[in-house]
Amino acid sequence: MSFNTFGKIFRFTTWGESHGPAIGCVIDGCPPNINIRESDIQIELDKRRPGQSKFTTQRKEDDKVKILSGVFEGKTTGTPISLIIYNKDMRSRDYETIKNKFRPGHADFTYFKKYGIRDYRGGGRQSARETASRVAAGAVAKKVLEKKIGKKYKVVGAVTQLGILGCDTKKWNDQTIRKNPFFCPDKSIVKLWEKYLLSIRKSGNSCGAIIELRARGIPVGLGAPIYSKLDMDIASAMMSINAVKGVNVGSGMNSAQLTGDQNSDEISQSGKKLKFFSNNAGGILGGISTGQEIIVSFAVKPTSSILKSRKTINKFGENTTISVKGRHDPCVGIRAVPVGEAMLNCILLDHYLMHKAQCK
Amino acid sequence: MSFNTFGKIFRFTTWGESHGPAIGCVIDGCPPNINIRESDIQIELDKRRPGQSKFTTQRKEDDKVKILSGVFEGKTTGTPISLIIYNKDMRSRDYETIKNKFRPGHADFTYFKKYGIRDYRGGGRQSARETASRVAAGAVAKKVLEKKIGKKYKVVGAVTQLGILGCDTKKWNDQTIRKNPFFCPDKSIVKLWEKYLLSIRKSGNSCGAIIELRARGIPVGLGAPIYSKLDMDIASAMMSINAVKGVNVGSGMNSAQLTGDQNSDEISQSGKKLKFFSNNAGGILGGISTGQEIIVSFAVKPTSSILKSRKTINKFGENTTISVKGRHDPCVGIRAVPVGEAMLNCILLDHYLMHKAQCK
Amino acid sequence: MSFNTFGKIFRFTTWGESHGPAIGCVIDGCPPNINIRESDIQIELDKRRPGQSKFTTQRKEDDKVKILSGVFEGKTTGTPISLIIYNKDMRSRDYETIKNKFRPGHADFTYFKKYGIRDYRGGGRQSARETASRVAAGAVAKKVLEKKIGKKYKVVGAVTQLGILGCDTKKWNDQTIRKNPFFCPDKSIVKLWEKYLLSIRKSGNSCGAIIELRARGIPVGLGAPIYSKLDMDIASAMMSINAVKGVNVGSGMNSAQLTGDQNSDEISQSGKKLKFFSNNAGGILGGISTGQEIIVSFAVKPTSSILKSRKTINKFGENTTISVKGRHDPCVGIRAVPVGEAMLNCILLDHYLMHKAQCK
Amino acid sequence: MSFNTFGKIFRFTTWGESHGPAIGCVIDGCPPNINIRESDIQIELDKRRPGQSKFTTQRKEDDKVKILSGVFEGKTTGTPISLIIYNKDMRSRDYETIKNKFRPGHADFTYFKKYGIRDYRGGGRQSARETASRVAAGAVAKKVLEKKIGKKYKVVGAVTQLGILGCDTKKWNDQTIRKNPFFCPDKSIVKLWEKYLLSIRKSGNSCGAIIELRARGIPVGLGAPIYSKLDMDIASAMMSINAVKGVNVGSGMNSAQLTGDQNSDEISQSGKKLKFFSNNAGGILGGISTGQEIIVSFAVKPTSSILKSRKTINKFGENTTISVKGRHDPCVGIRAVPVGEAMLNCILLDHYLMHKAQCK
Repeated sequence: MSFNTFGKIFRFTTWGESHGPAIGCVIDGCPPNINIRESDIQIELDKRRPGQSKFTTQRKEDDKVKILSGVFEGKTTGTPISLIIYNKDMRSRDYETIKNKFRPGHADFTYFKKYGIRDYRGGGRQSARETASRVAAGAVAKKVLEKKIGKKYKVVGAVTQLGILGCDTKKWNDQTIRKNPFFCPDKSIVKLWEKYLLSIRKSGNSCGAIIELRARGIPVGLGAPIYSKLDMDIASAMMSINAVKGVNVGSGMNSAQLTGDQNSDEISQSGKKLKFFSNNAGGILGGISTGQEIIVSFAVKPTSSILKSRKTINKFGENTTISVKGRHDPCVGIRAVPVGEAMLNCILLDHYLMHKAQCK
Repeated sequence: MSFNTFGKIFRFTTWGESHGPAIGCVIDGCPPNINIRESDIQIELDKRRPGQSKFTTQRKEDDKVKILSGVFEGKTTGTPISLIIYNKDMRSRDYETIKNKFRPGHADFTYFKKYGIRDYRGGGRQSARETASRVAAGAVAKKVLEKKIGKKYKVVGAVTQLGILGCDTKKWNDQTIRKNPFFCPDKSIVKLWEKYLLSIRKSGNSCGAIIELRARGIPVGLGAPIYSKLDMDIASAMMSINAVKGVNVGSGMNSAQLTGDQNSDEISQSGKKLKFFSNNAGGILGGISTGQEIIVSFAVKPTSSILKSRKTINKFGENTTISVKGRHDPCVGIRAVPVGEAMLNCILLDHYLMHKAQCK
Repeated sequence: MSFNTFGKIFRFTTWGESHGPAIGCVIDGCPPNINIRESDIQIELDKRRPGQSKFTTQRKEDDKVKILSGVFEGKTTGTPISLIIYNKDMRSRDYETIKNKFRPGHADFTYFKKYGIRDYRGGGRQSARETASRVAAGAVAKKVLEKKIGKKYKVVGAVTQLGILGCDTKKWNDQTIRKNPFFCPDKSIVKLWEKYLLSIRKSGNSCGAIIELRARGIPVGLGAPIYSKLDMDIASAMMSINAVKGVNVGSGMNSAQLTGDQNSDEISQSGKKLKFFSNNAGGILGGISTGQEIIVSFAVKPTSSILKSRKTINKFGENTTISVKGRHDPCVGIRAVPVGEAMLNCILLDHYLMHKAQCK
Repeated sequence: MSFNTFGKIFRFTTWGESHGPAIGCVIDGCPPNINIRESDIQIELDKRRPGQSKFTTQRKEDDKVKILSGVFEGKTTGTPISLIIYNKDMRSRDYETIKNKFRPGHADFTYFKKYGIRDYRGGGRQSARETASRVAAGAVAKKVLEKKIGKKYKVVGAVTQLGILGCDTKKWNDQTIRKNPFFCPDKSIVKLWEKYLLSIRKSGNSCGAIIELRARGIPVGLGAPIYSKLDMDIASAMMSINAVKGVNVGSGMNSAQLTGDQNSDEISQSGKKLKFFSNNAGGILGGISTGQEIIVSFAVKPTSSILKSRKTINKFGENTTISVKGRHDPCVGIRAVPVGEAMLNCILLDHYLMHKAQCK
């Protein structure tokens, strides 16, 4: 039972509230002798960092990570890696309005009902700020897999739908993704998205998004039936990200509409080279990786903290309305991209180690 | 780490292969002094039992469950409950064709690559036959929650889309579901589905489905942030069911297309009665139950074992084709309904106990 | 949280009551492609089987084990191995006397107070009969380690003290152990022990024992700091055996009386060969195996079910006395030898797999 | 699988090396609405703090703890509690001598062999400094249980044997324990112990100790068969403390020498009051608390880092000798008292919550 721990062998435990002194995580089970520097982690954190464009929250956090343990002379030692990120730009007074009111669509209500107490400042533990710790853990996992599997190993994520606007995933380009503020993989749609999101923001509203993750260089055999299936852990991980409401692997929900011959990916062999004719499975069959690209997508609902006035109640059970000012992302889905990547890196390493334990 | 165990406090471990002597499960962590008889479990198993209509596999299994431990004089004792179901109608010779060939879209290939060995008879451990054990565990969980929460507690599932044909979920009727062979909640569409599925079967093909689950009478507060969120465990559980490729909670993937004001469920209070104006959240916010109906849906891909000839390879790495005869469900999604219900019962009990441990 | 499951990667879950239809266990995480037959397990079970001499219970159980899953064509497949042993010689009427009375020193009282219900027949779940399942699991672990490490791998246990009578552990002889009904390693003391135990039995009393386990051929590096230390898991495992009250590793409790220079085992190297001058550590330093012989001992208290009359209360809170007839071991410690061996085999395999996962 | 995490529901994860920037722990699963201040934790840490007498290490650490998360306006919120203690008085150059040499009896050798790398400064992760984190976690557990059970709840530990010198446990006095530098419960022996330990220290040697823990106010019913027995978790916890080699519950190893009628604790009832005539069981039967005082003892071996010259090898496999200067405790067992208390507090809370989950 692990309320705040994720993983089985490679495990990380996150802690910290949005407006507390710091947030952080402890990584356990990391293999020894992996080169890791703070800068390796910082690169990933910078992808998620707030305040980088007008399309994300204006909270200014440099999110500098510090390694407190588990690394000696630049190498992991096999002992727990403690990472800390200090909080800096907290404006707790912005949150006086939500101190006693529950934002519709937010976890304010459920946290309060569950625990009878909550740190309301900046959303406290509910805040998406917690995901910075995941990104840090994911950076470590990535380094391990790059050493174990080699440079062909790569996880890359993108926003493939912004509110009502999709993109053409056939035009997916890894380079494009890092060159626009939306992690959009399709250059041709970026301008349109920009206009759309500006209008959403101006209207004091927010929108949802779909994020797609692709993992390459994955060996066949990762994932363990029946209750440690790779896709099961992926679904679990993605659903654990704030505001996520749906997860697909490969053809996902759409597979319901296919017939057996449309859906099943035919196989052929040419010399030593095995080939699948399609990838409806998203690289996973029976919960085990096929060696194909792993394809996962998930939906992030629109940010709940919006300027538009909404009906709600306060903690005394009285009817009221709420309009949230603060500094919120108009589309929280955008910054979910590096978080999704991080979670997938962690799961893949975890299953890599599990497979090594039982089967190698 | 629990390859074949599901749950945290209320845990079940399943075992058994499709054509072995028996399958079964061991339930651990069940509260004591709950009335439970074999017939309570049998009722649930009978919903999933094969051979009940021409729309499911013709394998004849009476699936009689036997309680081997943990129940004394009709009551649970708090010790592990071991359940066994003997396999009867095995025709292993039907599987000679797949002995050395990998069915496209099936786990044949990945099991073999992972373990270097597999029991191919009837799909061995990959077979959906394993899900009978889950249904048995779910029956026990249901009995516990009915005692703890009361009769208002209810989980009910239905097929809401059969291949390309949806249904009108506004016409959802619990009584209707048990009166047609598709677990369809909308009486008006049943005839059409029947025609459609017969044509699928006749063509030696198969189709996918979407299953929706609704849980009522759920107290507020179940689910624990950050890595034991209720929706996280639900996503994990549903994705663990054979052939599932996508999971939605509430508005699910569709929430990406909504704006903040469309999506967030407004709240009001009238006396002691709290009311949400909508349920896009599917009854879960921040991973914690709101007290609303919990709504989950998941997609089951079409059965991989089809008569239609498909390109594949054999275990010697040679190109070949395969056409699977056997006795397979034309839409394996139908029998996933009681399985989904069972998993949801188990998760809800697990979180009920977890909540009791930490917060009561 | 695992009430009835032991282990982390190689895990077994036991179930069953003394007078239920059967007992058994499910082994999860076993590596694939290990040769295992029912006879491999039966050999170990036969060491523990009751009714083999006048020094153990006269209950007649042939304890025939049946493999229900996880083994295909003589080899493990990596899927759960379900083992079952049917109960045969139950005389539940012998237990009418304890139906409502609590045996002093027995778990009758605590089970009843904890759960509010208990299966009193033959001690129900409290019965040492549960340990047969452990022996079965240990037999599988042993097979795996013999394949992975080689035939130099060996775990052997013995009774080194019977009540007030010790033995000379310097005369330890593996062959001797199997040739007397006490698992005594010192031939010279066997006759005396026989007389002593007969007198204990005649007087309607019982006695305790100390069991020592030695594990050879252990690679350096097994065990993971800080909370998966090898000795920690060993202490836990031994303490989980019925009636065990103390556990020592190496010099154990006696190490309190040593000085630093007496206690610490000096090291030298001769060519490729590393040598320790002593083994006070019992083969474990910092929770990690040193490569030396692992030495563990544990104390089993005297059987609580004795003929001698004892003061107690019944479940209605009334004072009474109890004198237990039934068929009880005069020294339950004797049959703890194969159980201790089994637990040590399981732990060593578990740590072997864990080490492989993180460090290889 | 939890290398650096202890517990099941109330869990803590420790991190940090002796000479890194800080050490700390993350506590998960703590119930909400418990009053906790840094000073509550500091009181316990001060008991373990080094440099308080000439009988412990002269390293000067004020061991000030800081709460980084999980507490809001003086109360726990149910979210993870992150605690940090900065390291201050590190003299890493003292450790140059052990950089390449393995101290006999120390984990230097095994850590290096396991991981192929180790932070040798101050013993790195092997250092008993890690136990400060446990004491901090224990302080939180204690506060929770004092609220849940009431002030009658109390865990108190003492050194009952110092090297070759025992004490009279019949003279146990809780007040005495805090008034001498040995945590000795028997005033009459303190002077003698003082002389003895001074002579040990002067000779550049060290000695072992036995610590006894007593827990009062424990409700009946804590502990869960078969593999979450209370005594099993206690044995595991005590054995996880640095340098511990043996653990007893109640009569412990000595129970081997008793007969059944000597050992089993008779019971009587007088009105509502249940009474046991003795406590050989140490308050635990069948792994479940009886409601009596819980009595546990464990042996701590003598400190391995001694001035006396010892034969060893270096990491290049060459024979050498070692004499450790540094600032080491002549009897590391003394400071194990608050650590043992802390671990017992954590276990009791964990089982309290587990019992609540399943049985209330």
